Amino acid sequence: MSIHEIPGGITAIKGITASGVAAGIKKNKQRDLALIYSATPCTVAGVFTKNRCPASSIQFNKARLRKRQGQAIIANSGNANAATGPRGMEDTKWMARVTAQSLGIPEHLVYVASTGVIGEPLPVEKIQQALPGLTAALSKENGRAAAEAIMTTDKMVKEFAVEGPVGQSRIKIGGITKGSGMVHPNMATMLAFLATDASVDPALLQEGLREVTHRTFNAITVDGDTSTNDLVLLFASGQKGSLINQKGKPYQQFLALLEAACSRLAQMIVQDGEGATKFITVQVIGATHDRAARQIASSIARSNLVKTAFFGQDTNWGRIVAAMGNAGVAINLAKLDITFGKIPLLLKGMHQGKEVEAEVNAYLKNKELMLSVDLHEGAGTATFWTSDLSEDYIRINAAYRS
Amino acid sequence: MSIHEIPGGITAIKGITASGVAAGIKKNKQRDLALIYSATPCTVAGVFTKNRCPASSIQFNKARLRKRQGQAIIANSGNANAATGPRGMEDTKWMARVTAQSLGIPEHLVYVASTGVIGEPLPVEKIQQALPGLTAALSKENGRAAAEAIMTTDKMVKEFAVEGPVGQSRIKIGGITKGSGMVHPNMATMLAFLATDASVDPALLQEGLREVTHRTFNAITVDGDTSTNDLVLLFASGQKGSLINQKGKPYQQFLALLEAACSRLAQMIVQDGEGATKFITVQVIGATHDRAARQIASSIARSNLVKTAFFGQDTNWGRIVAAMGNAGVAINLAKLDITFGKIPLLLKGMHQGKEVEAEVNAYLKNKELMLSVDLHEGAGTATFWTSDLSEDYIRINAAYRS
Repeated sequence: MSIHEIPGGITAIKGITASGVAAGIKKNKQRDLALIYSATPCTVAGVFTKNRCPASSIQFNKARLRKRQGQAIIANSGNANAATGPRGMEDTKWMARVTAQSLGIPEHLVYVASTGVIGEPLPVEKIQQALPGLTAALSKENGRAAAEAIMTTDKMVKEFAVEGPVGQSRIKIGGITKGSGMVHPNMATMLAFLATDASVDPALLQEGLREVTHRTFNAITVDGDTSTNDLVLLFASGQKGSLINQKGKPYQQFLALLEAACSRLAQMIVQDGEGATKFITVQVIGATHDRAARQIASSIARSNLVKTAFFGQDTNWGRIVAAMGNAGVAINLAKLDITFGKIPLLLKGMHQGKEVEAEVNAYLKNKELMLSVDLHEGAGTATFWTSDLSEDYIRINAAYRS
Repeated sequence: MSIHEIPGGITAIKGITASGVAAGIKKNKQRDLALIYSATPCTVAGVFTKNRCPASSIQFNKARLRKRQGQAIIANSGNANAATGPRGMEDTKWMARVTAQSLGIPEHLVYVASTGVIGEPLPVEKIQQALPGLTAALSKENGRAAAEAIMTTDKMVKEFAVEGPVGQSRIKIGGITKGSGMVHPNMATMLAFLATDASVDPALLQEGLREVTHRTFNAITVDGDTSTNDLVLLFASGQKGSLINQKGKPYQQFLALLEAACSRLAQMIVQDGEGATKFITVQVIGATHDRAARQIASSIARSNLVKTAFFGQDTNWGRIVAAMGNAGVAINLAKLDITFGKIPLLLKGMHQGKEVEAEVNAYLKNKELMLSVDLHEGAGTATFWTSDLSEDYIRINAAYRS
């Protein structure tokens, strides 16, 4: 049996429980404090934002990750605890400490994540008051409540889990994620927490998560902005299967499973993109190498003009060409194919005529769209996922905070 | 007497005439064909888009510029003649040829510019029919008609001229420009044509234009997209003053005059930015070097989240910090000052309180805004000009072409 979806999210993994409550950090009284707990210590891998003004939680987790061990994640929404100076770091450390006390586990096994408004001090009293209830509520069922509690401008709860063969065993990976704006590679205002029952060498787990994140969470864009707080954490409990400690077939199977989980979670973020009305897969093939393909895919996926044309359901392929030209990669227009869905509009740089364009116009009325670009130069490929850019994006972001 | 504005645009320069007519390239019957003519051959400098899918006119002008000589510019709006294959280049060459014939000047002295929809063949018959009338209409007064004829989604005609001391003479520089979307460094969907009566060595003229363009036309952003067709052309007739052939005081005076002309024209583009309701100057000081300052200024100026916050008149300084963090430059938040107008909101990383923030909120209701950021690291500075991002931007760009 190959990889298939299973119900639930992060708590689909044996030994993992979670909870989410409303601590009053958000003004709207929705859930804003999440806890994820593993019955046993796990091997941990993490990938962090490349923003040069990272939140205190990012710096904190990076240091913590050196031991590659963890048992719990405490996460709040409504306040990013970013650009909050020395007090910000104290508050992050305090969050880890009180969570460890509440769970009765060593402090160094707790990770901290925050998302929300930047530059305001964390309301620590509210968190302190909510913590006993949060800990008491840990359960399999409350995995969804945890997924709710990390949402900011998200409209849908995002959780997903898969099961598939790894070596002689069947392994599960489940996760929850949030993010709907400021979504761009390296990374979005995006949190993702994943767990697996696989047993993986710490260095390999880290390498694998980094590789898969590059192709999934770092291959999505909503508005080209990258946040101060983004992170992906993966807990491996090691409850099932043999230890994966080399890059053989089991490791490749594990990577495929991890990619199945992460790509679906990443796609959910784009689908929930602020104001998004369309989900667009941008596929670049035939580039001289993968890196060139990725630069072109990214340039198309983040172009405001391309994104508004998709919103307007307009076959404005000239904007796609212009965006490709901005990728900093040499392009031979005389070789270029541009295909919408299965309809080739441009073949070897030649427009296929008004009738074909009319077909593309009709195709663009769909909500899920595929844009393929073939450069016919080599074997380099890349896939990006993006949304259209609508008036609602502006409304949401002009009003946020107020 | 120092530098001061004089009436008119490019035809404010002695010997320069211009005209603009409606040739029927645009569907809306507005002016779409412009001609600029100098009574005598000029020294020419040019700066071109860095887009890797440039229009045929860009490739054509680059080749033509090798001789650094010119006497006329023919420009059309409504059609970019980009991504039009071998026929596109033939059409560009044809435009130069028929224009030279119509003016009775050598063909190699004619430059060509196009702006508008990408990927559609140029309607050459319409241009041929309009050319006699266009040539006959050349005059000082029709400088404004030429400025109109290069507009696309622009709402205001953009022309400007200055006069100032250069050596023992008083020199004039005048220009016209267009561009209101796809406006971003290197360069925007932007055309700028300038003329001066100064006499400047060809290599120095080119170096000076490049330097000034870097700080003006390449320091503005509307939507982060860069077009296939952008160019700046500067004609120097040499009618006044001594030849400037070294980097002495007269050259510096000439550069100051050129910067006065180009910065005002560049600012006009931002003010006319698609859907823009605010004009924002982003000033970065105290960076380790100018290049770092420029990266930070650019990152702030192009952030969709910062731009929507300005549209929402919201003091969302956290987004400014996040955008700075995306510039790829190390930032010490503990040293950072952020000032809106003359109101310092952040001093050495410390928020100055709710009352100060209320003052900033009130300040943000202005149409012209100044955002200053001081890193306190060194002497590096940069200035960018940007607009806010409004719902109208989406409306304009979702509908354009249809």
